[in-house]
Amino acid sequence: MEFNVTHTDPGGNARTGYFMTYHGRVETPVFMPVGTRGAVKTLRSSDLLQLDPKIILGNTYHLYLRPGNETLRAMGGLHHFMNWDRPILTDSGGFQVFSLKELRKISEEGVEFKSHIDGSPHLFTPENVIETERVIGSDIAMVLDECPPAQSDKPHHRQAMERSMRWAKRAAHHHRTLPFPYGHQQFLFGITQGGTYKDLRKESALKLREISFDGYAIGGLAVGEATEEMYETTEFTASLLPTDRPRYLMGVGTPQDLLESVARGIDMFDCAMPTRNARNGTIFTSYGKLNIRNATYKEDNSPLDPNCSCETCTNYSRGYIRHLFNVDEITGLTLTTIHNIDFYLRLMEGTREAIQEGRYRSWMERKLERMGELN
Amino acid sequence: MEFNVTHTDPGGNARTGYFMTYHGRVETPVFMPVGTRGAVKTLRSSDLLQLDPKIILGNTYHLYLRPGNETLRAMGGLHHFMNWDRPILTDSGGFQVFSLKELRKISEEGVEFKSHIDGSPHLFTPENVIETERVIGSDIAMVLDECPPAQSDKPHHRQAMERSMRWAKRAAHHHRTLPFPYGHQQFLFGITQGGTYKDLRKESALKLREISFDGYAIGGLAVGEATEEMYETTEFTASLLPTDRPRYLMGVGTPQDLLESVARGIDMFDCAMPTRNARNGTIFTSYGKLNIRNATYKEDNSPLDPNCSCETCTNYSRGYIRHLFNVDEITGLTLTTIHNIDFYLRLMEGTREAIQEGRYRSWMERKLERMGELN
Repeated sequence: MEFNVTHTDPGGNARTGYFMTYHGRVETPVFMPVGTRGAVKTLRSSDLLQLDPKIILGNTYHLYLRPGNETLRAMGGLHHFMNWDRPILTDSGGFQVFSLKELRKISEEGVEFKSHIDGSPHLFTPENVIETERVIGSDIAMVLDECPPAQSDKPHHRQAMERSMRWAKRAAHHHRTLPFPYGHQQFLFGITQGGTYKDLRKESALKLREISFDGYAIGGLAVGEATEEMYETTEFTASLLPTDRPRYLMGVGTPQDLLESVARGIDMFDCAMPTRNARNGTIFTSYGKLNIRNATYKEDNSPLDPNCSCETCTNYSRGYIRHLFNVDEITGLTLTTIHNIDFYLRLMEGTREAIQEGRYRSWMERKLERMGELN
Repeated sequence: MEFNVTHTDPGGNARTGYFMTYHGRVETPVFMPVGTRGAVKTLRSSDLLQLDPKIILGNTYHLYLRPGNETLRAMGGLHHFMNWDRPILTDSGGFQVFSLKELRKISEEGVEFKSHIDGSPHLFTPENVIETERVIGSDIAMVLDECPPAQSDKPHHRQAMERSMRWAKRAAHHHRTLPFPYGHQQFLFGITQGGTYKDLRKESALKLREISFDGYAIGGLAVGEATEEMYETTEFTASLLPTDRPRYLMGVGTPQDLLESVARGIDMFDCAMPTRNARNGTIFTSYGKLNIRNATYKEDNSPLDPNCSCETCTNYSRGYIRHLFNVDEITGLTLTTIHNIDFYLRLMEGTREAIQEGRYRSWMERKLERMGELN
C-alpha cells in the first residue's frame, strides 16, 4: 500500500498523510464511521456521500453471520451490496467474538464460539477470517487477534499477545495465497496487543514489523483502562511502528481521545460512539456534549451546534429534534446521526489543516478548552 | 380557495385540476403522504423534497398532545418546525379521538377524551380544534366530525352525521373570526358523514354545501365496509358535491382504491398504508405487493420494482433491503418508505396524465391488471 506522510507537526508526533486504495484516496488523520452490518446505522449511502467520509468500516463477525459469505459472494461483495464505492476497512471480528458472553474455546487453531443470534457453533481461524474478508471485498482487512478482557493479568496478556502474533503470521501468509474475487486488491493490517504493558507492546510491534503489513493497528485499548494509561500506551506503541505505514487506533473514542491520539502519532480511527450516542440523543458540539432529550430544548429554535453546517444543523432546530425523540420518530435518529458523524469528520479535517499549518498543539488545546464549556 | 378543473375524462367522473395555497400549487388527483407528528415516518424534509409530494398531512390530535400548541406557536408553526415550506393539510383529530379505546364522552359541546400517552383529560370542540389547526398553521384545516364505529346502526349514523353537521357550521363560523398567526391564509374543508346510507350522505352533502367550504371531504369510509359499498358511497357522495371544489376521500387506501375512487370523481387522498406497510416490509410494485422479508429475496440483485426509478430502486437490491430488515437496520425502513411513497405519488401522476389524455378508464384497467399479477 502506498502511504505518504505529507506533514509532521514540528512540536510533536501529529502527522498528515494519505494512502491509496482501489476505491479511492484516504487523507489521514481519518475517522471511519462504523457500518457494522452493511449500513452506517440509520443512514443510506446517499447520506454517507453527503457526509463525505473517505472510508467506512464493516464488521466481519456480523457480516459473516448475516447475510453470510454465500450471499455476500452472490451479491458481488459488500461495496456492491450496500452501494458504496469508496474504501471499506473490515474489522476481523476478533473483538466481537472475545466480547461474547457465551463460552468460547480458544486453541492454537482459532476460536470456537456460538452465534449471538441462534447459538449455532462456529470457528474463526486466522485463515478463514481472511477468507471471509476477501469475500466481503474490503479494501483493508484486519488480522484475527485475541483480545483479552481488560482486567487480565500480565501472563494472560502475554499469552494472548504471543498467540495473536502467531495468528498474524498465519493470516499474512494466507492473505498472499487468495485470489481477489472482485478484481481489486486488498491490503492487510496487523494488530499489536499487550494491554498497557510496554514490554509486551514492544515485542508485539517488533514481531508485526518482522512479518510486514500494509498498516499497523493498536488493539485492546479503550477497554476500561485509565485514559492516561491509554494515551501513554498509544504514544509508546506508535513510536515503535514504522513511520511510513499508517497507524490505526482501534475502537477509540471520544473527540478528546482522537485529538490526543493524533498528537501521539495516530493516523486512523473508528468508533461506534458518534453513531450510538446519536441514537440515544447525545450530541457532540463544539462546546461539549448535550442530550437533546432534555426538556430545556423544547422550544429552542437554535441548531444542535451553532458552529456546524451539516444538513441537520442547517435545517432543523433543537426543539424539533427534541420533539422527534420525545415521540419516538425514527427521523430524529437519522438527524442526530448525521450531525454526530459530521462532527467527527470535521474534527479530523481540523486536525489535518492544523498539522499542515504547523500549529497542531495550540489548535488542539483551544478545541479541547471549548469542548469543555458544556461539560 | 381557487380550484380549477382542467380536464374531465370523457368516459366518467375522473378529473384533473389544481388549487393554490400560500405554500404552493397542488395538482389533483393528489396523494398526501401522512406526517402525523411533524415527520413522515423515517424521512426528513430533504427526502420529501426529493420524492416531491406537493402537499403532506399533519394530525391535529397528535400535534396537540405533543409537542402541544404552546411549543408549536413558539416554534413558528408546523412548516417552520419541520422545515417544510410546501402545503400541509391537517386532519381534525376526530378520527383519532373516536378510535381511542379509552372511554370518551360526546356532548353537543364537543368530545371529552383521555390522552393515549398519559391518560390526561382533554376536550375537543369544533372551535378549539380550529384554533389548534390555526396554531399549527396548516394550509388546509379539516372540521371536527364525529366518526361512528363501522358497525353502528342507522340511527347512530344519523345522530353522528347530524351532530357533525352542526359542528361543521360552528367550525366554519369560528374559522372566520380567527387571525392568521403566520401571515398566510388557511382554507377549511367540511366532511360528509352518514356511513353507507345514501339518504344520510345526501343530507350531509347538502348541509355542507349550504354552509359553504373551500373543499369537501368524505369521511367515515374504509372502516370495515365492503369495498364495493365504499366505492358506491364514494361515487354517490362525490356526485352531490360541488364540481368546482376539491373532493377529498379521507384515509383511503390501496392503489386500487385510489384508482377506482379517481374514476368516481375524487381529487385528494391521504393514507398511512404506503408508509406503514413499508415499515413492515410490504412493498407496492407495478405487479402487486411483495414482502421483502421473504427468504426468496435473499440473493435477489434486482430492485424492489423493475419499473421504478426512485432512489431506492435506482441504488439498492431486494437482497440488500431484505438483509437490512433481517438484521433490524433502520436504514431498511427508510428505503422501503421512500419506494412506497414514490409508488403512490407516481400512481397519481399516472392518473393525471391519463385523464389529460382522455384515456383514464383503459389506463386504469391495464394498471389494475398488472397489479394483480403477484397477488
